[in-house]
Amino acid sequence: MEAGEQSEWCTKAWAHLSSVRNQSPLIQCITNFVSMDLTANTLLSAGASPAMLHSSSEIPDFTPQIHALYINVGTLSDTWLPAMKLAAELASQFKNPWVLDPVAAGASGFRLKACLDLVSLKPTVIRGNASEIIALANASLGTTKGVDSSHDSTDAVEAAKSLANSSGAVVAVSGAVDFITDGNRVVGARNGVPMMQKITGTGCAVTSLIAAFVAVDPSHPLEATASAMAVFGVAAEIAMEMARGPASLRMHLIDSLHGLDQTAVISRVKITSLYEIQGKF
Amino acid sequence: MEAGEQSEWCTKAWAHLSSVRNQSPLIQCITNFVSMDLTANTLLSAGASPAMLHSSSEIPDFTPQIHALYINVGTLSDTWLPAMKLAAELASQFKNPWVLDPVAAGASGFRLKACLDLVSLKPTVIRGNASEIIALANASLGTTKGVDSSHDSTDAVEAAKSLANSSGAVVAVSGAVDFITDGNRVVGARNGVPMMQKITGTGCAVTSLIAAFVAVDPSHPLEATASAMAVFGVAAEIAMEMARGPASLRMHLIDSLHGLDQTAVISRVKITSLYEIQGKF
Amino acid sequence: MEAGEQSEWCTKAWAHLSSVRNQSPLIQCITNFVSMDLTANTLLSAGASPAMLHSSSEIPDFTPQIHALYINVGTLSDTWLPAMKLAAELASQFKNPWVLDPVAAGASGFRLKACLDLVSLKPTVIRGNASEIIALANASLGTTKGVDSSHDSTDAVEAAKSLANSSGAVVAVSGAVDFITDGNRVVGARNGVPMMQKITGTGCAVTSLIAAFVAVDPSHPLEATASAMAVFGVAAEIAMEMARGPASLRMHLIDSLHGLDQTAVISRVKITSLYEIQGKF
Repeated sequence: MEAGEQSEWCTKAWAHLSSVRNQSPLIQCITNFVSMDLTANTLLSAGASPAMLHSSSEIPDFTPQIHALYINVGTLSDTWLPAMKLAAELASQFKNPWVLDPVAAGASGFRLKACLDLVSLKPTVIRGNASEIIALANASLGTTKGVDSSHDSTDAVEAAKSLANSSGAVVAVSGAVDFITDGNRVVGARNGVPMMQKITGTGCAVTSLIAAFVAVDPSHPLEATASAMAVFGVAAEIAMEMARGPASLRMHLIDSLHGLDQTAVISRVKITSLYEIQGKF
Repeated sequence: MEAGEQSEWCTKAWAHLSSVRNQSPLIQCITNFVSMDLTANTLLSAGASPAMLHSSSEIPDFTPQIHALYINVGTLSDTWLPAMKLAAELASQFKNPWVLDPVAAGASGFRLKACLDLVSLKPTVIRGNASEIIALANASLGTTKGVDSSHDSTDAVEAAKSLANSSGAVVAVSGAVDFITDGNRVVGARNGVPMMQKITGTGCAVTSLIAAFVAVDPSHPLEATASAMAVFGVAAEIAMEMARGPASLRMHLIDSLHGLDQTAVISRVKITSLYEIQGKF
Repeated sequence: MEAGEQSEWCTKAWAHLSSVRNQSPLIQCITNFVSMDLTANTLLSAGASPAMLHSSSEIPDFTPQIHALYINVGTLSDTWLPAMKLAAELASQFKNPWVLDPVAAGASGFRLKACLDLVSLKPTVIRGNASEIIALANASLGTTKGVDSSHDSTDAVEAAKSLANSSGAVVAVSGAVDFITDGNRVVGARNGVPMMQKITGTGCAVTSLIAAFVAVDPSHPLEATASAMAVFGVAAEIAMEMARGPASLRMHLIDSLHGLDQTAVISRVKITSLYEIQGKF
């Protein structure tokens, strides 16, 4: 990688964050009960406008008005799944980007099928941990341990490329290094801190942030996704300098995201294109 | 306005908060998934006793025991709406005050109709942002942007008066200035900080606080509503002195509300009767 | 009580916490909407792996994989109750411990019956406040005030013993002193701070922690329960030294639980066997 390319990514990340702050895109979230609060606060602190509306009775009126849709299957049920599908279909029909977080995709047959059905509705981006992406790519229950990954993100790069190719989505795998791929290009983002895994919903939150970033740059979903993951990671790095544990990290993370300035983003974002070392991660 | 009147409002606000702390009213909350946590913690820190029970199977047993009911349609669905109506009917029947937060009232036809149906069940107080109050007063979908207002609170004063007159409720409009009206009198409350808009659920939280304040002074809903909004705003002002962003503001807000003393309330509450400038806001 | 016994309890508590950190047991939580976030963060900060899955469609696949189940009826409904029962049955069938939090058991006939039905499915541990345990032991609606107790924990010791004997469960009563009994032995735990009652969901959180502790020592549910309650209380005591109110206490509580070291646990845990003063609390 050249310094020039790294610098371009930093500039891009700052431009994406600035656009979210300026345009305040309306992001509909159909997500889980555990992390609705953190998700809404993440979007607000980034400058977006979250709306948690999930009823099939109002999706036909509401979803056409939004700038992006975020779907997360964390606390999935029979009653919420049809609304997720309806909203996804409408988002696609109105050419609005939508982003899928396939939480614990391999935890049950019901959940795996629901996730695969949602993938077939053409999400713009899919973000998960390694176990989730492998489960989706292989359409198999695999070895997820609840909602936590039992794989490193590097283990899932080939699965991510395969899923991107079969689905048409940009696929992102969270981990010590985040990988983002459209099936051909692979980009790595290296921001964040390990203690984020000790806060519930940080994966959900970053996926919602991806939706906001894609909303302001819908024709570059790979770049917007890499920017969102790196920016969230930068906010966590700054927060970690003040944190005494997971709960204070969470508080400082939201504060940091709200206060992030150009200098911090430009100097800290670590995104790399990985074309040249394809097949070797 | 005379200094004497302002001082009376401050004394009233402190009396209301003291009564909530002494009587610890039981407040049933049928509210949204996003802000249940913040709402419960707001009520607890103010000295009230929140109970989040929403099932139609137990409302007939439980609702008669409460001191006030709080209904918020944030994450409305077909399955929750009948329970909201049942609880509202029982609260009215047992002469308990109930308070409505018509979140995003104009976001869909389903939601608008649900809100209008609830308004017809005679809430004691309705609190919303300007866009929500305008949507209800006009019974039209209007220009809400998701859950955020696209109007200033001053734009909604006439709509609030009209809604108060047609519904019989005290109507409160949140904004840079909060307006509270019973259709004749209009009161302005000027506490709070702009960053509260960057924390999800602060509108929901203050509406629940209104329920607690009205519970201890049910024959003066306009005064109790103004007190609750001003006291919450004072807690936010004190919190803002320590906050570094939205998440630390939220933490300090709850801490401040818990610790508020008479001196802070008396010296900071800014409530004004606006009879004399009616029609010009 | 001898110093030797106290020291044994401290050693046990530290051993339980260490096992949770080392084994990271997978805890399925079917719990209320209010405290899912706090519960998940409590389990994560203690080293466990929480999974909030509640759909009957996936419980048959998922529940057999877990190490313990936690059921909390806080925001109970007709639609969630069958899933709770199904998961409890499967946990028992697969010899996994499960723990019940009968929130507001006496608040309605529907809720009381639901709790009694769950008790009949043989929970390993039941933890509630005094009013809840009395309601269950007497199978009567009693005098609960919403979700808060109207009794001291000492009032409920005989009810707890009776419930333990009739159900086969270890029964824990939270209060200024926490009592834990298997029907014969009674243990008192004296950690914690009064301000925890001003934070929503701390009761729910400690019950989920009991599930994690029992998961790593399933053959000693009484000891694991006493350890969990004392350890949570110790974390609260340390947090209280930094807190300025309920919200900062909550943050420091999670941070403290994450950072607890052997010295703090050994020097602070206060557990006492109360055989000798049976009948006199």
